[in-house]
Amino acid sequence: LEKVMKGRLSTDLMLRCTILDNNGAVKSISGQFKRSDLCNEHRLNPRDLRKIDSRIPNLVPTILIRKEAILINVLHIRALVKADTVVLFDTYGSNDSRLHSAFLYHLEHNLKARGGGSPYEFRAIESILLSVLSALEAEMVFIRNLVGGLLAELEDDINHDKFKRLLHYSRRLASFKNRARLVQGALEEVLEQDDDLNAMYLTDKKKGIVRQNHEHDELEVLLEFFSKQVEEIVNEAENIESNVQSTQEIVELILDSNRNALLALDLKVSILTMGLGSGALVAGLFGMNLQSHLEEMPYAFVAMTVVSAAIAAFAAWGGLWRLAKIRKVGLTSSQTAKRGSDPKSRAPWIPLPLRRRNFNGWS
Amino acid sequence: LEKVMKGRLSTDLMLRCTILDNNGAVKSISGQFKRSDLCNEHRLNPRDLRKIDSRIPNLVPTILIRKEAILINVLHIRALVKADTVVLFDTYGSNDSRLHSAFLYHLEHNLKARGGGSPYEFRAIESILLSVLSALEAEMVFIRNLVGGLLAELEDDINHDKFKRLLHYSRRLASFKNRARLVQGALEEVLEQDDDLNAMYLTDKKKGIVRQNHEHDELEVLLEFFSKQVEEIVNEAENIESNVQSTQEIVELILDSNRNALLALDLKVSILTMGLGSGALVAGLFGMNLQSHLEEMPYAFVAMTVVSAAIAAFAAWGGLWRLAKIRKVGLTSSQTAKRGSDPKSRAPWIPLPLRRRNFNGWS
Amino acid sequence: LEKVMKGRLSTDLMLRCTILDNNGAVKSISGQFKRSDLCNEHRLNPRDLRKIDSRIPNLVPTILIRKEAILINVLHIRALVKADTVVLFDTYGSNDSRLHSAFLYHLEHNLKARGGGSPYEFRAIESILLSVLSALEAEMVFIRNLVGGLLAELEDDINHDKFKRLLHYSRRLASFKNRARLVQGALEEVLEQDDDLNAMYLTDKKKGIVRQNHEHDELEVLLEFFSKQVEEIVNEAENIESNVQSTQEIVELILDSNRNALLALDLKVSILTMGLGSGALVAGLFGMNLQSHLEEMPYAFVAMTVVSAAIAAFAAWGGLWRLAKIRKVGLTSSQTAKRGSDPKSRAPWIPLPLRRRNFNGWS
Amino acid sequence: LEKVMKGRLSTDLMLRCTILDNNGAVKSISGQFKRSDLCNEHRLNPRDLRKIDSRIPNLVPTILIRKEAILINVLHIRALVKADTVVLFDTYGSNDSRLHSAFLYHLEHNLKARGGGSPYEFRAIESILLSVLSALEAEMVFIRNLVGGLLAELEDDINHDKFKRLLHYSRRLASFKNRARLVQGALEEVLEQDDDLNAMYLTDKKKGIVRQNHEHDELEVLLEFFSKQVEEIVNEAENIESNVQSTQEIVELILDSNRNALLALDLKVSILTMGLGSGALVAGLFGMNLQSHLEEMPYAFVAMTVVSAAIAAFAAWGGLWRLAKIRKVGLTSSQTAKRGSDPKSRAPWIPLPLRRRNFNGWS
Amino acid sequence: LEKVMKGRLSTDLMLRCTILDNNGAVKSISGQFKRSDLCNEHRLNPRDLRKIDSRIPNLVPTILIRKEAILINVLHIRALVKADTVVLFDTYGSNDSRLHSAFLYHLEHNLKARGGGSPYEFRAIESILLSVLSALEAEMVFIRNLVGGLLAELEDDINHDKFKRLLHYSRRLASFKNRARLVQGALEEVLEQDDDLNAMYLTDKKKGIVRQNHEHDELEVLLEFFSKQVEEIVNEAENIESNVQSTQEIVELILDSNRNALLALDLKVSILTMGLGSGALVAGLFGMNLQSHLEEMPYAFVAMTVVSAAIAAFAAWGGLWRLAKIRKVGLTSSQTAKRGSDPKSRAPWIPLPLRRRNFNGWS
Repeated sequence: LEKVMKGRLSTDLMLRCTILDNNGAVKSISGQFKRSDLCNEHRLNPRDLRKIDSRIPNLVPTILIRKEAILINVLHIRALVKADTVVLFDTYGSNDSRLHSAFLYHLEHNLKARGGGSPYEFRAIESILLSVLSALEAEMVFIRNLVGGLLAELEDDINHDKFKRLLHYSRRLASFKNRARLVQGALEEVLEQDDDLNAMYLTDKKKGIVRQNHEHDELEVLLEFFSKQVEEIVNEAENIESNVQSTQEIVELILDSNRNALLALDLKVSILTMGLGSGALVAGLFGMNLQSHLEEMPYAFVAMTVVSAAIAAFAAWGGLWRLAKIRKVGLTSSQTAKRGSDPKSRAPWIPLPLRRRNFNGWS
Repeated sequence: LEKVMKGRLSTDLMLRCTILDNNGAVKSISGQFKRSDLCNEHRLNPRDLRKIDSRIPNLVPTILIRKEAILINVLHIRALVKADTVVLFDTYGSNDSRLHSAFLYHLEHNLKARGGGSPYEFRAIESILLSVLSALEAEMVFIRNLVGGLLAELEDDINHDKFKRLLHYSRRLASFKNRARLVQGALEEVLEQDDDLNAMYLTDKKKGIVRQNHEHDELEVLLEFFSKQVEEIVNEAENIESNVQSTQEIVELILDSNRNALLALDLKVSILTMGLGSGALVAGLFGMNLQSHLEEMPYAFVAMTVVSAAIAAFAAWGGLWRLAKIRKVGLTSSQTAKRGSDPKSRAPWIPLPLRRRNFNGWS
Repeated sequence: LEKVMKGRLSTDLMLRCTILDNNGAVKSISGQFKRSDLCNEHRLNPRDLRKIDSRIPNLVPTILIRKEAILINVLHIRALVKADTVVLFDTYGSNDSRLHSAFLYHLEHNLKARGGGSPYEFRAIESILLSVLSALEAEMVFIRNLVGGLLAELEDDINHDKFKRLLHYSRRLASFKNRARLVQGALEEVLEQDDDLNAMYLTDKKKGIVRQNHEHDELEVLLEFFSKQVEEIVNEAENIESNVQSTQEIVELILDSNRNALLALDLKVSILTMGLGSGALVAGLFGMNLQSHLEEMPYAFVAMTVVSAAIAAFAAWGGLWRLAKIRKVGLTSSQTAKRGSDPKSRAPWIPLPLRRRNFNGWS
Repeated sequence: LEKVMKGRLSTDLMLRCTILDNNGAVKSISGQFKRSDLCNEHRLNPRDLRKIDSRIPNLVPTILIRKEAILINVLHIRALVKADTVVLFDTYGSNDSRLHSAFLYHLEHNLKARGGGSPYEFRAIESILLSVLSALEAEMVFIRNLVGGLLAELEDDINHDKFKRLLHYSRRLASFKNRARLVQGALEEVLEQDDDLNAMYLTDKKKGIVRQNHEHDELEVLLEFFSKQVEEIVNEAENIESNVQSTQEIVELILDSNRNALLALDLKVSILTMGLGSGALVAGLFGMNLQSHLEEMPYAFVAMTVVSAAIAAFAAWGGLWRLAKIRKVGLTSSQTAKRGSDPKSRAPWIPLPLRRRNFNGWS
Repeated sequence: LEKVMKGRLSTDLMLRCTILDNNGAVKSISGQFKRSDLCNEHRLNPRDLRKIDSRIPNLVPTILIRKEAILINVLHIRALVKADTVVLFDTYGSNDSRLHSAFLYHLEHNLKARGGGSPYEFRAIESILLSVLSALEAEMVFIRNLVGGLLAELEDDINHDKFKRLLHYSRRLASFKNRARLVQGALEEVLEQDDDLNAMYLTDKKKGIVRQNHEHDELEVLLEFFSKQVEEIVNEAENIESNVQSTQEIVELILDSNRNALLALDLKVSILTMGLGSGALVAGLFGMNLQSHLEEMPYAFVAMTVVSAAIAAFAAWGGLWRLAKIRKVGLTSSQTAKRGSDPKSRAPWIPLPLRRRNFNGWS
């Protein structure tokens, strides 16, 4: 613990980062910088960089607005956006370079396109959020296909292995939903604070333009767009989750009902066995080496065979008849029970004018 | 991924749309327009149209208020409402033309009825929301009938196939409720922001009338009306959902209780079988080819038959007696257990003046 | 659908209503009025009356405040309150006339009592809310008795029919709770908006007295009183619901535990049957018509009888012993398992100062 | 119903109350007062006293602030606090006089202690809330011990009676939590409204001191203290509740798992019985009074005995082998199934950089 | 109870505390002070110290801001921070001195580091919150490992003892989550109130500098940092909790499905036993000492053996065939059932344009 506490004081760690300049050109790729130098250069508090620090994965995404820079730490992207520079920190262990290079390509392209009218920092933010959105969507599609496939397989056959896969998928879905919701939360948090929105106009700040309090329509529209998109993804994830949930519930009911069917068949078999047993008892009695005085009667064999078969059949029939009575399962009780309970709920002396409302449509 | 990212930059897609002019007359049916032209003509951001874009179904409905237009994207309707024009975008794959033509008929009629006093844009919004409401209500009624019918069938008989249908219906109900709630959310969002409500008076804006901050009663009443109606639908859907939920729970209890009944019958059969088995053992012993020295006794046969039957009956009776003791299931424990637990909860030294409150009505 | 849409345009429907004048005297009972006339007379929007329209039951109660009137549509009461008139609309199909006449009696009495100091409209509202409250309370008491009786019966005996009644009651309880909560919501909604509260002083408005923004104590106290009462009812309903819920859970556990007891008994029977079977096998072997060379031994019969009985007893004892080992179910594991898991959670090197907190009371 | 409605109009009921004067001395014990007199004397609305009315237990606690008095109706205490008097209403049927006399003692003592600096009304409120807090704590401790004891007993043995007690305790816990939360809600409600807080400085009001809007630190600190304490109790109750909940869930799993163990043993017994049955069949066949032509072979008996035993053993072994295969239950599927499902989730082409995040701590 | 009430009045208890002076040097270690002296010296209300009082563990953490001091009572730390002194109260029974000494070391170091620019009180708060955070993280990691290990073990084998450990861990996890959430709540509460934030600038207050209302960026950033970190821990705990939850659900399904498999095997065994029984009945009949007139037929033995074996096989085959039919469990019903239910949901006349929405991605 002491080590940890001391470790927190030493801030001179090296960070690897890629820097894009004013024109969107890459100045340095994966260069190493001291954390303290970065703090000084961009006027940041060392504590801010701790969140960006590439070796620690952060579950909760953050968008920090500081005096001269915006620090964005959302999913796989950790970036510092200034009025004329973008610093991308390398995420430790991010091995999907394809996603990263696509993002870098788009960012360069977007930053170069000066004519668009948006300030430099907004174009950077747009690219970053677009990459985040793409990653979320790709994962969403992937999980939806996994879960959808599994639920489709469950249509055909319910078994052990499917439950295990269901567990893995639903864990993953929950974690995905959580992540998407946190991204949305981070966007909403920025949108809710007028101060922060104003402070994000870095180019204007640099030029010394003072902004009025509610003049941030452009940025608001941009962030709202992404917030809505992420909300849609969260919503979709919740839909899938509730699908999985209701499937689980119904599967449990089906297993229960199947078990009752198995038990009923088992019972039939037991009843038949009991019938055979009662027949066998009769046969066994006559198999005793004792004098039944029927030994010499010519048709005694046939008679006793018929008798024991009849006993077996009778015992089995009695059992099956009782089974049939139990098996009829419905929500309505028998007539008498119904008479006992319903009249109460229709008692005429109760002022419940709203009890039985029928929806007739409106016009 | 790169393709997707580039795709996002190309905005020159064709959109099919139907345009209604100032007098409610249809100017062009399913005409094709370039997305970029539409943006320029109606002073929109390309990003706004992306939501309207007919090829992408959007789960989350949105009502966007822009400088000269209102973009409505709710369920099956995607429309751009201006002070003197309504542009309806064709939804990709919307094959229920009957719903659409009824909506178009009503919209035309409503836009023509100039005398009503409401501005052009409000009449358009009213028609759109009315169509949305009709669609929701129709689906509501349909689902309620489906679920109601199924629950009524469950009254008679609980079986496998019903559970499967229940699963399908409850998935569908969940998705419907979600959609209705999102529609309500979109309406509420507009209602909550005074700025947006003011900005929706497009005709006034066009005429250059500046509105005071809280003068939007007419629009508020209109939107509130629809919001209340949708709330009612959401409420109804939740009621159905909770009905389904409690039915599932009770069905599970009934299946459990039925299983216990099956087990009890099974047990009875097993007990009888055991009884027969014990009788058969006695018979079997006398069937051995060994000298029991009873071979010649004249009534040994009858005696042993009686003995083995008695053993069988005794064994069965013992089993059934124990079964009867276990089968009595109630929430109250036996007397002794009751004495053990209740006194504690009635211990007189505890200051719980509120423990047993009886509601006496008020007067 | 077209019919519905057209239907919405025709507003000249007849409404039946009872009108009370300035002095609380009934002017007309169940008279028929055109909807459009009513709108004109009381300066209402046709859309407002749609909610009041007697043929459509509305789940969501509403209190609409208009320029010269207050429209109240709560449960069985649909009324239009003005500064000097009260219009009661007949609810379609409301067959409990007793409730209605009691309400009418109280309303007349209250409106006549001029000396009370409250304005005419508040006395009307008070009577209306009192009637609503009485209806809710009556239903509350009724449902509580139903559910309480059922839960008491479950104490004695858990069976099929009780679950079915439980389902019916819990559906009804859910619907009641929902209704009560919506009534409370409607009251809260009015209470939250100062504008609406002010606008409800119809008498003052008529006299031309302009009210300051926060001067509506009298009305607030009145509405808050009813809101608190309804809250209490909602709270009571939630209590009952949670009681039903926990009873269901425990009943499931009891059924499970009972099933285990049944299974255990079944197992005992099976074990005894197996024992008998093993004895019978021995007997059967000696019953074969083959030479065992023991045929002539005088005590072979007794010996084999003892042997087969011993085998039967031994097999049964072995089975019962294993059963007893399985049946001991507790939450604590056996000693060894305990040793394996607990030490971990008591590992001394973990900085968890808060793990085992005991509540000692304070000071 | 009519009776109820009329009953509401008659307000001249007698209330029993104890009055403490300016110096904390008891002026009258359980004296009877007319409701209407009390209303006039303390300038209250009759409706306010309805809540205080001693014959009706109120679930929802209320703190009403009126012009010259504060009405407190929380749990067992119903009091009217004025700037120089405290009126305690006798709760109907409150039989725990010890709690009440301790409260009265403390109240007198506290009211006499003039030097404390706090105004008269705050000292009264403090005593009242302290008594409420003590009652809640005492019940909390009592319930915690009950539940804790039961859960500890469940560690040793899971059975029927324990579930029944669990049901009783969890109902009671739910009701207690609800009550505590409502008390906290009442305190919070007062704390949230600056107007109410100001209006509670009755002594200042009487002296004619006008208070500024935010000068109510002393009262705020007092109420916040009690609010925090009650919050702690609510929190503790929720903890116990979630403990009970998770215990129930695990107990269900344990019962399920135990049932599987019972079934497996049952199956073993059945298999052995089947083995014995197949041996018995062989023996039975040779027991037929037919010519097997082996009658005279000297070792046929031993041979057939061995054969039938072998058949029995073989049948039993086959059954047990299949059982062993089914019994191995784990979450991981067999190798092949694993290969089928996992590769999908590790598909290399998916941009899920966040899938496997390991928490490395931060420094 | 009386004792308790009196006890609350006596405030002259001794408290053990460690005091750090202006330079971070320890002035006294575990010195004893009278509670009343502390109140006078630091101008506190005795009620404030009650929360700090070392003998009572407090579940709900609090940060109280008073005129000259900040009282922090979070988890294991109870401290009084002033502009030039820090008083650490010894927690009763806190036996993990290592954690405490690490905290003390860090606090001293941090308070000495005057150059940092932050005021004395903020450096103290930072150290305190850092220690709290470390404790939470350490416990988080510990619990995650416990639970993760258990879930991994469940992958291999589902049994009794694991459920018991799961219960213990999930109780502990719930209590940990609750604690972390309360810490976050306490931080959020301070952050939400501008007054409190301003009042925490003790050094400025002492120097007499009056602060404007929104000038508390430094403190806000500091507290927000810790609040985010704790939020992350809470989030992680919730993730683990939902993992445990879904594992429990799936384990239940797996146990259910395993039970069905066991039942099916049981059924097979029963069926075979029944088959053997029917064969044995035939053999038994011929074992009767009666004249079957086949006694002398040479091949009767072989014939009857074949016949009885055939009967046994036929009975078993019939049972197994019915079993196979029941065992096929899938979510899709048989063809006919499908035909009966699906057409309804595809009825063409229903205006449900949104029923089957496919997500096509967006571009």
